[in-house]
This record gives sequence, C-alpha cells and structure tokens, in this order.
Amino acid sequence: MKKAIVAYSGGLDTSYCVVNLNREKGYEIHTVIVNTGGFSKEEEERIETRAYELGSKKHTTINVVENFYDKCLKYLLFGNVLKNNTYPLSVSAERIFQAIAIAEYAKKENADCIVHGSTGAGNDQIRFDVAFSVICPEVEIITPIRDEKLTRQQEIDYLKSQGVEYSWEKAKYSINKGIWGTSVGGEETLTSNKSLPSEAYPSQLQENESMDIEIEFTKGEPTALNGKKMSPTELIIKLNELGEKYAIGRDTHIGDTILGIKGRVGFEASAPLILIKAHHLLEKHTLTRWQLIHKEQVASWYGTLLHEAQYLDPIMRDFEAFLTSSQNRVTGKVFLTLKPYQFELKGIESPYDMMQSKVAKYGEENEAWDSRDARGFIKIFGNQLKIWQSFEK
Amino acid sequence: MKKAIVAYSGGLDTSYCVVNLNREKGYEIHTVIVNTGGFSKEEEERIETRAYELGSKKHTTINVVENFYDKCLKYLLFGNVLKNNTYPLSVSAERIFQAIAIAEYAKKENADCIVHGSTGAGNDQIRFDVAFSVICPEVEIITPIRDEKLTRQQEIDYLKSQGVEYSWEKAKYSINKGIWGTSVGGEETLTSNKSLPSEAYPSQLQENESMDIEIEFTKGEPTALNGKKMSPTELIIKLNELGEKYAIGRDTHIGDTILGIKGRVGFEASAPLILIKAHHLLEKHTLTRWQLIHKEQVASWYGTLLHEAQYLDPIMRDFEAFLTSSQNRVTGKVFLTLKPYQFELKGIESPYDMMQSKVAKYGEENEAWDSRDARGFIKIFGNQLKIWQSFEK
Amino acid sequence: MKKAIVAYSGGLDTSYCVVNLNREKGYEIHTVIVNTGGFSKEEEERIETRAYELGSKKHTTINVVENFYDKCLKYLLFGNVLKNNTYPLSVSAERIFQAIAIAEYAKKENADCIVHGSTGAGNDQIRFDVAFSVICPEVEIITPIRDEKLTRQQEIDYLKSQGVEYSWEKAKYSINKGIWGTSVGGEETLTSNKSLPSEAYPSQLQENESMDIEIEFTKGEPTALNGKKMSPTELIIKLNELGEKYAIGRDTHIGDTILGIKGRVGFEASAPLILIKAHHLLEKHTLTRWQLIHKEQVASWYGTLLHEAQYLDPIMRDFEAFLTSSQNRVTGKVFLTLKPYQFELKGIESPYDMMQSKVAKYGEENEAWDSRDARGFIKIFGNQLKIWQSFEK
Amino acid sequence: MKKAIVAYSGGLDTSYCVVNLNREKGYEIHTVIVNTGGFSKEEEERIETRAYELGSKKHTTINVVENFYDKCLKYLLFGNVLKNNTYPLSVSAERIFQAIAIAEYAKKENADCIVHGSTGAGNDQIRFDVAFSVICPEVEIITPIRDEKLTRQQEIDYLKSQGVEYSWEKAKYSINKGIWGTSVGGEETLTSNKSLPSEAYPSQLQENESMDIEIEFTKGEPTALNGKKMSPTELIIKLNELGEKYAIGRDTHIGDTILGIKGRVGFEASAPLILIKAHHLLEKHTLTRWQLIHKEQVASWYGTLLHEAQYLDPIMRDFEAFLTSSQNRVTGKVFLTLKPYQFELKGIESPYDMMQSKVAKYGEENEAWDSRDARGFIKIFGNQLKIWQSFEK
Repeated sequence: MKKAIVAYSGGLDTSYCVVNLNREKGYEIHTVIVNTGGFSKEEEERIETRAYELGSKKHTTINVVENFYDKCLKYLLFGNVLKNNTYPLSVSAERIFQAIAIAEYAKKENADCIVHGSTGAGNDQIRFDVAFSVICPEVEIITPIRDEKLTRQQEIDYLKSQGVEYSWEKAKYSINKGIWGTSVGGEETLTSNKSLPSEAYPSQLQENESMDIEIEFTKGEPTALNGKKMSPTELIIKLNELGEKYAIGRDTHIGDTILGIKGRVGFEASAPLILIKAHHLLEKHTLTRWQLIHKEQVASWYGTLLHEAQYLDPIMRDFEAFLTSSQNRVTGKVFLTLKPYQFELKGIESPYDMMQSKVAKYGEENEAWDSRDARGFIKIFGNQLKIWQSFEK
Repeated sequence: MKKAIVAYSGGLDTSYCVVNLNREKGYEIHTVIVNTGGFSKEEEERIETRAYELGSKKHTTINVVENFYDKCLKYLLFGNVLKNNTYPLSVSAERIFQAIAIAEYAKKENADCIVHGSTGAGNDQIRFDVAFSVICPEVEIITPIRDEKLTRQQEIDYLKSQGVEYSWEKAKYSINKGIWGTSVGGEETLTSNKSLPSEAYPSQLQENESMDIEIEFTKGEPTALNGKKMSPTELIIKLNELGEKYAIGRDTHIGDTILGIKGRVGFEASAPLILIKAHHLLEKHTLTRWQLIHKEQVASWYGTLLHEAQYLDPIMRDFEAFLTSSQNRVTGKVFLTLKPYQFELKGIESPYDMMQSKVAKYGEENEAWDSRDARGFIKIFGNQLKIWQSFEK
Repeated sequence: MKKAIVAYSGGLDTSYCVVNLNREKGYEIHTVIVNTGGFSKEEEERIETRAYELGSKKHTTINVVENFYDKCLKYLLFGNVLKNNTYPLSVSAERIFQAIAIAEYAKKENADCIVHGSTGAGNDQIRFDVAFSVICPEVEIITPIRDEKLTRQQEIDYLKSQGVEYSWEKAKYSINKGIWGTSVGGEETLTSNKSLPSEAYPSQLQENESMDIEIEFTKGEPTALNGKKMSPTELIIKLNELGEKYAIGRDTHIGDTILGIKGRVGFEASAPLILIKAHHLLEKHTLTRWQLIHKEQVASWYGTLLHEAQYLDPIMRDFEAFLTSSQNRVTGKVFLTLKPYQFELKGIESPYDMMQSKVAKYGEENEAWDSRDARGFIKIFGNQLKIWQSFEK
Repeated sequence: MKKAIVAYSGGLDTSYCVVNLNREKGYEIHTVIVNTGGFSKEEEERIETRAYELGSKKHTTINVVENFYDKCLKYLLFGNVLKNNTYPLSVSAERIFQAIAIAEYAKKENADCIVHGSTGAGNDQIRFDVAFSVICPEVEIITPIRDEKLTRQQEIDYLKSQGVEYSWEKAKYSINKGIWGTSVGGEETLTSNKSLPSEAYPSQLQENESMDIEIEFTKGEPTALNGKKMSPTELIIKLNELGEKYAIGRDTHIGDTILGIKGRVGFEASAPLILIKAHHLLEKHTLTRWQLIHKEQVASWYGTLLHEAQYLDPIMRDFEAFLTSSQNRVTGKVFLTLKPYQFELKGIESPYDMMQSKVAKYGEENEAWDSRDARGFIKIFGNQLKIWQSFEK
C-alpha cells in the first residue's frame, strides 16, 4: 500500500483528496498541516479530528513559526521587503516554508507520494512542486484538484456519496492567515477598479485613541516592545494584536505571478508593516549612504525571488549573508504612534545614530570643515561635469 | 562697475548680500528670484519692491514651473521617485532648476559674478556652485554668508547701520515652498527622536469627510482630474489644494547629504505623494514584470543623483530616455479616496490593463494552458535547483 | 489543404519535416529560409533547389541582415554585450530574428501552421515558439523533431523510402554561421574540460604579419574602416574577413540555457569581438563615470534577456532608448593592431575625449584646483567614513 | 620634538620630505615602508640604509602581503574584478593597504603627524588622507609635495645643499610593483592614442613554447598549481613568475579618477589576469544563473568603491559577506595553456560542475523532461508577452 502525505488544510479540496485517494486509489493517507502562525490550538484540533474522520491513518501538525522567522522573516525585515512597495509577501513566504516542511516530513517518513490541493491557475502549485522535486525528487507529486478540474459541487457530491457531510459553505472572501499577514481574496480582487470593503477584512477597528509605542531592535531584529524584552516571534504576535485593533496595515497588492499573468489580492498585515517601516527608519540613521543604496537593490531581489519560488537557490543564501552583515549596527529604539488605520513614525534613538555624531552635525557650524574646504570640495566634485560640458558648442 | 547677479529670496541673508556687495564692494546688483511654484503674485511683488529698496539696479522674476515639470518633475513621477522611500525630493529638485535658471540668466546678461546666500553647511551651496561652474564657468561665484559666517544679529545690525530696517523676526520653523512640496525645518528636525508638531506644517486639516477622486494619466503624465482635462502643472496645483485640506503628505525625511553627514527635514507634499502612488498603481497593471523590476532601480538612481547635484550629468538624459520609453502604455484612470491625513488607492481602469486580458486571467480556469502544461512548466522551471541540489550529500 | 510554413535550413531534420508533413499529413508546404549573414548566394540557391525537390510549393529566402543590425546588433555593440564576459550572443540573437521574420511571413501569408526543426533539449525551440505565439498566436506550431524523437538513421531511412536520397553525412562539428559570429559544437563542447581543437573552427590562420587598422564610430555605430566610409553591416562583413585571417575571436562559452541546465559552445566571432572592445575603449574616453557604471548593468541585462527569448518584452525597448541616448558622443577613431589569434587596442581619437580636456588633465599641474582645494575635497569626501568610524571602540 | 611618520619609498620626493621636515621644521622622523609584494629583500635593505642616511630616527618595514590577500585580493578574485573590464586594480588596492598599515603604525607609535609624498593631482592623496583621517583622526597629515609644488630640480638642489647626493635620474617610465600587478606610466599614457612600447614593460618575453598548467581552487581561493599545494600568496608569486616569461597580462587602463578627470595607465599583471579568468570559468560551471547575474553587479561595485577609496565603508564588509557566501562550491581544477602574450582557458573539473549532472545534460535526450513538458513550459513562459502583445492593434 502506497504511503501518501497529504498537505491537508481542513477545507473542501484537500478533504476530497484524502477521501478519493484513500478509497478509490487505495493510498495509505498521512495528513499533515503546517502552521505558520495562522491556526489557533482549537483550529489545529478541529482539523486533526476531521482528518481522522476522513480516513487519515496518521495526522501531524508541524509548527514552523520559529524556523520561518529565523530563515526567512528575519531577512524580509532586514531588507524592509515590500513587494511592489506594498506587499510584505505574507502568503508567498509562508507557502515556501509549508512546502519545505512537508517535503522534509515526506522524506523522513519514506513517503511514496505527496498530495497537494493547488489548482493549475496560481503560484502555490509552483512553490509546492518545486520544493518537493528539489528536496525529495524521488517522491511522486499528486494533484487531483489541478488535474481533474472538479467544481466545488462535484467535490461535495462525491464526498456525500462517500458518507462525508460537512457544511462546505463557501465564504464570501477566501482568507489565508499567518504570522506575517492575512491575505483576503474575493469578488473585488478579481476586478482592477474596486478595493475590498472594510468588512472583508478579518480585523475591525476597535480603538480610536492614538497610542505611543516603542520598538527596540538589536542588530536588525525586534527584541523589545514598550520596554519589555521578548522574542521576535512573540513581538510580532503582540504587535499584530495591537495593530489589528487600529485596523492598521490593510492594502491591495497587484503583481506578477510566476505564470506571467497579473494577480491581485487584499491583505492586512499590521505587525509586518509597522516593523518594516520602523526598522527602515532606524537604518536611515545608522547605515552609510552606500549601504542604503545597495541594500535596497539586494532586498528587492530577495523579495522577488522569494515570491517566485526561488528560495532554495543559493543566491538567496548569498543575499542573506549580505543582509546579515548590514545589520551590525541596526540597534536602537524606534518611537511610533498608532492611530486608526495608520501609524506615524516619530523618531529613533541609537548608539550608532550617525545624525548625532560629534564629528559633524547637519545645519550646524562645525569644526569638521570650513568654507574654504567646502569651496575646494565643490570645485573638484564638479570636475567631471565641467569637463563634459566644456565640449558643448 | 562689476555686474553681480544675486539669487535673491527676500530674506535676511540675501538682503545683507545685496546691500553689502553694493555699498562696500561697489557691485552693480541685479537681483533675480526664481519661482518654482512657491511664491504667489503678491509675494513676488513684495520681494521685487524690497529688492529695489535695497539697491538692486534691476530685479527679475523668472517663473520656471513649466520647465521644471517638463525637464524634471515628469521624470520623478515616471520613476515614482521617493528618496529613501519617503521624500519626493521637493527642495533638492527645485534648487537645481533655480540654479540653472540663474546661471543661464547670468550668461545672457554677461554678468561678472553670481551671488548666493547658502551657508557652508548644506547641500544647496553644492547645487548652486556646480550648476554655475558648469553652465557659466567664466562667472565668479560670491558667497558672503558661507565665507563670513555672520550671525543673524550681525547681519541685522549691519543693515540697520545702512538704514535698512525691516522686521527680520526669525520664524520658529523655516519653510521652503514649491510646486513639488514644502519643506519644514525646526527644533525637532535637529533631533533624531522627535517629529514635527502638527502646527509646524503650513497646511492644517480642514476637511473631515472623505472624498473620492479620479486622476487620469496619459503616457505617464497626469492629464485630467475628476474628468476635467488640464495641464500637468495645473493638475498638481489643484491636487495640492485638495490634498492640503486633508493634511495629506506630511512626513519626515532623514537622509545623506552630499557632504557625507545625515540631515533631517519635515515636509508636506500632498500632490506629489498622491500622484506618485496613483501612477505607480497604474504601472503595476500596465507594465511587464521586467519593466517594473528595472524601472525601480533606474528611478532610485535618478532620484539619488538628482538629490546629489548630478542633474547635468548625461547619465540623467539616458535615464530619462529609459523612463520615457517605459511610459508608453501608462494610460488610464486611477480611483482614490482622500481622507484626513491619508488617502486610499481603490483601483484603476486602463485599455492596457494586463490583469483584464482575454489571453488569461488570474484565478480563473483559462484556455491559455492546462494542468499538463503547468506540470511541464514547473518541471523545467525547477531544473536548475534540482541540478544544484543533486550534489548535496 | 492546410498551408504550413517550414523554417527550412536544407539539413536533414527540416528536410524530413517537409517530406513527411507533405506526403503523410497532406500539408501544402511553403519553405522559408532566413539569412542572417551566414549563407552565400550559392548556398541560398542550393537550399532553394533542394526545397523544391522535396516538394515545397513555394520557397522564399528572407535576408534580415540590415534589420538584424538595426534592431539588435547595434544595441549589442552600444552595450558591449558579451554574455558571461565571453560570448557575443551570435546564435541567441540571430535565432530571434529568424523567428520574427518567419512569424511575420506566416501572418502575411495567412498560414495555418509553422513548422520548425528544433528538438526539445535546447534554447531554440523556446525562441521560436515564443516569437510565433506572440506575433501570430492563431497559427499552430508543429515540431516533428521535438515530438517524434527520431534518430538520424530513422529520418534518413524514411526519406530513402520516399525516394529522397542525398548524402546526409554528419559533420564532425555542427556549425552555425551568421554575421555576428559562428558557433561550433562537437565532441569537446559536451565535456567540461576540453576545448575545441584548432581544426574545428571554420577559419584558419592565414596571416602572420601584424596589421594596424582604424575603426571609426559615429554615435556608437561603426561607420568607417581604415578611413573608408561604409555601412555598419558592410563594415562588420569586411572586418570578419580581416579578423578571420588572423583567427581572432575564438573562444568557448559555457552558460545557462533557458531550460535551467548549463550548455557549452565554441564560437569564432572576430568582428564582434574587435568592434565591442574598440567601442568600449572609445566609451571609456567619452562617457562619464556614471554612464559607464550604469551602462554596464543595463547592457548585461539586455544581453541576458535577449539570450533568454525576451526580445519582445517592452523592457528591451526601454533599454534600447537608454543605450541610444548614451551614445550621443561615442564618436571618434579607434586604433588597433591585428595579430595571430589576438588583437591589441592602441588608443583613440575623439572630439569628445574627456582625457584631453582643457579644463584639467591627469597627472599635470592644472588650474582647475590647487592643493588647498584638494585638502578641502578630501576632508569632506571622508566625512561619512569619519562619522561612521567615530562610534567604534 | 614632534614625532612624524614618513611613508617613505626611497625616491626623491619622500627623501626630500625626510630631510626637510627633520632639518628645517625639527621633526623626529620615523620612516616606514609598506611592502605589498613589490620590494625584494635587497630593495628593502637599500631603502632602509638610505632612510637612516637621510636622518630617520627609526626605520620600519611592514610586509602586508598576507593581510592584503586576506582582506582584499581574495575578494577581488571572488568577484573576478577587472575595473572597466580591464584593470585588476593593482595600485588602487595596494595603496589602501599601505595607508591602513601606516595609519595603524602611527596610532600605535603615538605619532603627532604622518607625512606622505603624494601630489595634489592624483588618487593616492585621497586614499592616504581618507585612511589616516578615519583611522587616526587625531594625527596631523603633512604633504610637502602637494603643498609646495617643487620641481624635481628644486628638490635635488635642496638635498644637495644639505649634503645629500644620490643619482636621482628620472626613469623614462614610472613603475609601481606589487603582488597584484605592476603599473607603468610614461609619455604614451598621457596621450589617448598611443600604447606603451613593449620595452616599457618590466617583463619581457622569454618563452615561446606554450605550456599547459592547472590551477586548483578551494571555495574560490587558489590552493594548488600544477598539482602542488601552496598558499594563495605563494601561488600568485609563482604564477606571476610563469606568466611574466610569456609577457602575459599587459594592457592599458583608462578610467575615472576620484577627482573627476580621466586617467590612463599601463600595467602588467599576469597572475591576476590568469587567476581571474580561470576562477570565472570555474564559477560558470558551479554557480547558478542567479548567482552569476548578481555577483557581477556586486563585484563591479566592490571594485569601483575600492578604487575610489571607500574600502573602509561598511558596505564593503557587506559585499565581502555576499562574495564569501557565493564561493561555497567554487572548488575544482582549471586547465589552461600559457602562450606568448596570451593564454587559453581549456576547461575545468569540479565535483560541483552543474554541466555534468545526472539530472539532465545539455544537448542530450534526457529523462528530466519530455517534449510535452517543453511545450507546457514554453506556453506558460510566454504568457506575459502574449498578454502584452494582445493589446496592440
């Protein structure tokens, strides 16, 4: 009997896969769910129960939050990565780590095949298939949803015929939640001209009074919130809770899928957006001009390639080495104010704040140079332009 | 008698220059003010009156708004340029165009020298000196403020001794206004940890009701507001008026000066921010992935080099050729909502919207490819990673 | 009867396609050969004769040399493009222009399908299929060689069975010739450690005496050789003749195919290498530092995307606009010496030579600045490093 | 008595400094020479003797070859750095390390000032001054040659008047030798159209028979020559000896100085050029496409900023982290043939050669994908171009 690992989500598509592959094709089903911070304990348990009801021989929950932060989110923060200057790559990033966790699990379990429920229309199939074929190339990939193109009703009918009846009502908006943000898709995101209505977002404004907060970073990693030390993942979770009360971090991303078509998705990601902007501000005070210039380009590529399922390419390790090196002095406190739907960056404090240097300060008379030096500087600084211009008639 | 062109602003420093150079050094003074959209008719007249009172032989007002848009702001918009992802380069850009206008005027007038009031501590001296020495290298540059390092009181006293008495009270915040934004400097911007208080900004919130607006772009240039055709500069002015009522576009920029030190400045720039974000959204729908990737890098350099007084380097013309070419299809409408202190992008409509293509649409079953194609694509797409991984033990 | 355009080369594979599709599948065959400079008049005629013998209803020869230069080679020269710092993209570039010419021909002729002889293992199939599906998406693409995977012997046997007998002896090295270079593949190029033997190259050393030559460029385009004005394509052809006598421009390229695997190919390309190096030298004298820096990156991407079948992406037009703008002053003469297997760049002469400027010259005392200016320059130039260092313990 | 560290070279300019500062200004002179591989034991001794004769209180020779390799040359090799695709940065790199060594020595010795003999016309003054003012900002920098602008004859006369008589005949070509290459300046390098005559180069052709050699790299560093293990610096020295017999690695570099003017210099650098080309070839076989693309850009900037005296900027450490990470698999042997004035790369052998993978090989039928996969790949690969094109009339 062939052993099949099913990347199980508890939803209709993967439930269909479990039942169909088990009963029609005779696979021994091992369901796995990888939690990237989107499932509560209760949800994990509900999913597990259902998996066994459907016929899973063994159900496993893998929590990858720490690993996800350490091998990916950390670098997205170091790089201030917002795809197309908007999207923190919430789903793009977590899907990769789910795929890797499943591939490694399948390898460990000597599985014959891996089953996932992606369709043939999106990015996720690519992230899954690439990770599987790279990490466990000997394991077969089975994708009933992609291959059979069943409608929801056909899947429901099949399950009913097998005695499986849950309420599969389709939510008006499809929601994907993880520690680095929640994506929201629905009617409006299929258009180009409409944005999601406020009620489509899982979090709703609960707080009207603005609130000052303080985030501390140590070598680029967030290490304390309002003076209280905590681990980066704890901090992200706490900050998400705060930010969601203010409905901060909502936006719509439109970008290129790996398939060459444009896709649009709404999201809310309060902690990612607050942390990225705060971190970036601290960098502007503590990094040199050349670091700021080159980090921007490296980080933009890091985000693009992560989005496009290239996380396993060694170039990503090279970028990570660069980014880690760049964070050496990104240490200090950032002061912000949370407000309904937005936040304001107020300033920073850092032992490495290049703006508060004894050597020279902006806008002040200083001893670092005098007007004669400035004249000399500008004269030579303008040399090439003067030479270039001198040929013009 | 030597003819000196004074870049005159109406303020204390340049008033001192006019009087001192005329009376002590015997120069024939020709005052010039270059308006980049920051001075009203009344202000222009007030400055002219004062210039003559101080002893200017001839006062000239040069309005460069159209030229400034056409040779610079247009490209900042094409490139969605926000320095350090924040600052629309309001002052950096306009100072260059003031310098060029003065240099060309000096050349036309066969001036012996140009006088400007910059200190030795900031970027402006570089932007002025470089433009002058490139465009009219034979004209001497005179900078009494930089060289003599007088205090405000010494200047006031000198002017009083010359019978010149105005009220030179120092404003709490120094304000520089132009069509592409207003900079605000003051006590807080010299710190790293405090942001400007609301009252430091020239515009104050006047409108609490949100308002839907529509901006039309033609090949990247803004050509209609709420369905009404107008020139890009008219549109920017109108949009600034609207945005200022909502106090949109306030922020603080911290960045690298050309002198190698960090500088911080507050600004409000509602039209620039609204236009850049709206334009960028339209691009995400109408440009290819490769265009989006490379435009980002070209534009970032365009902004950096403009900021750093390299506008006259021919690389800027090369970047402009690239940016112009990229705008071929950036045509369509963008829908936004203005709100107090912020705005929301709702969507776009364009004849070139790649998201609404007949060829294939995101998230839909389509005829462009089937699941077998997707499998083939992913298989080959993953080739290099599979080869790379195959060597690992 | 369906009309099929066959991209015919005169070789075994496409001869098989002509006969097979005509006799077994009943297509009306229209053969087309696109000459990118690799076929002589005699070869064109020989191919035409054979095409009709095999059953082509209509044979057409399309010479695209001028178009190829104007829309592609010119930019490769502007960009000094050598893929992986080695390969002038001889085949990669010409294949695209063959594909485009065939696609446009098929469109004009209202063809039902296009037939090409590429296998499923290489880049050419991608260059062909992409161009066809973009330019004439309604035309079917037929690829018998890719789909049927016949051996050479099976093809020969089939043709013999159809009464078609030519001598199909397989050359030891497969050669592809065009105006921008000749590729050479064979036994050694399938290894990683052996280079092609001298006799594998079509051109052999005929000249031992070194020869001085002079190439003139006008806005980046080669316009005269040894003082004689000629068109760029004439000049390339002439220079290839000269260079081949010295066996200049041989090398082996190893790079990434679009399929993700590494491929290796030998080539000889004397004119491309001489022109690129000469052009680059002229640029070093006439472009600013910023132009040299950014051109390098733009050109590297131009070459990569051309190689990877992205010629039709609008980003390529944007790059071309940049490159064209950059050539404004790349005008002058370059002096070289041809020698057996190599050439030496001796120097240049240009009205825009920034090294021979009145403003300032290297290594000479000059009036552009004095030692006091130099001190001032360096002091301020070092500001940021001094600030950065001042925090270190 | 003030303690002055003189960066002493044994030549006329620095000899003048020693005598003049000691006898006229009363400094206690400590001479230092930093050897980057250009001075033999005998030369070191000759210089030491002369230093004491001139009045040095203490003469020190600092050999920085190992440090220079480890902190700089290694990265130039990792990055295949050739400035403007030509120059291995021989002098630019070593000058920085001489400056750093002197600054650290001055710091350790509590010197009051550092004296160097650079003029105000070139790059070296900047490399020296920047390093000194960053590393030992409290030490005064004294530059008599820059400030006094004496002619050679004035210096000779002064020394003679002080009883110092050596033969100061000026060599026809000024030579600067180090482990990473020898620069040659003279009459021709001040023109744009003449190259150095063969006899201007220190090394002359001694060997006409070609010779096969083999270089082994371990994680990017050269570790064996012709099968014999040795340290990288030993290998560079050995390879220079071999290459010089073939007069390999001569060329002329024309580029931008930090002062904004163009400068031209001849050089010979056989080991650097052979190593860089060999290393690059090995990388083409062992790195992924994305690594090759991004390394090129990082390395180009590394070279540019090193050349421009930015070695101490932390961005250089970030680039080094990137480059080090990229070398993880750059391990294997490279086969070359040395010939008069040139060398040929024949191939490589590596456990990580991606061209010789079991997964798939170029030009071969393989099991990694079939023709159906290829069709699917190309269909989806072309999606965006098809969508883009579909809007065109």
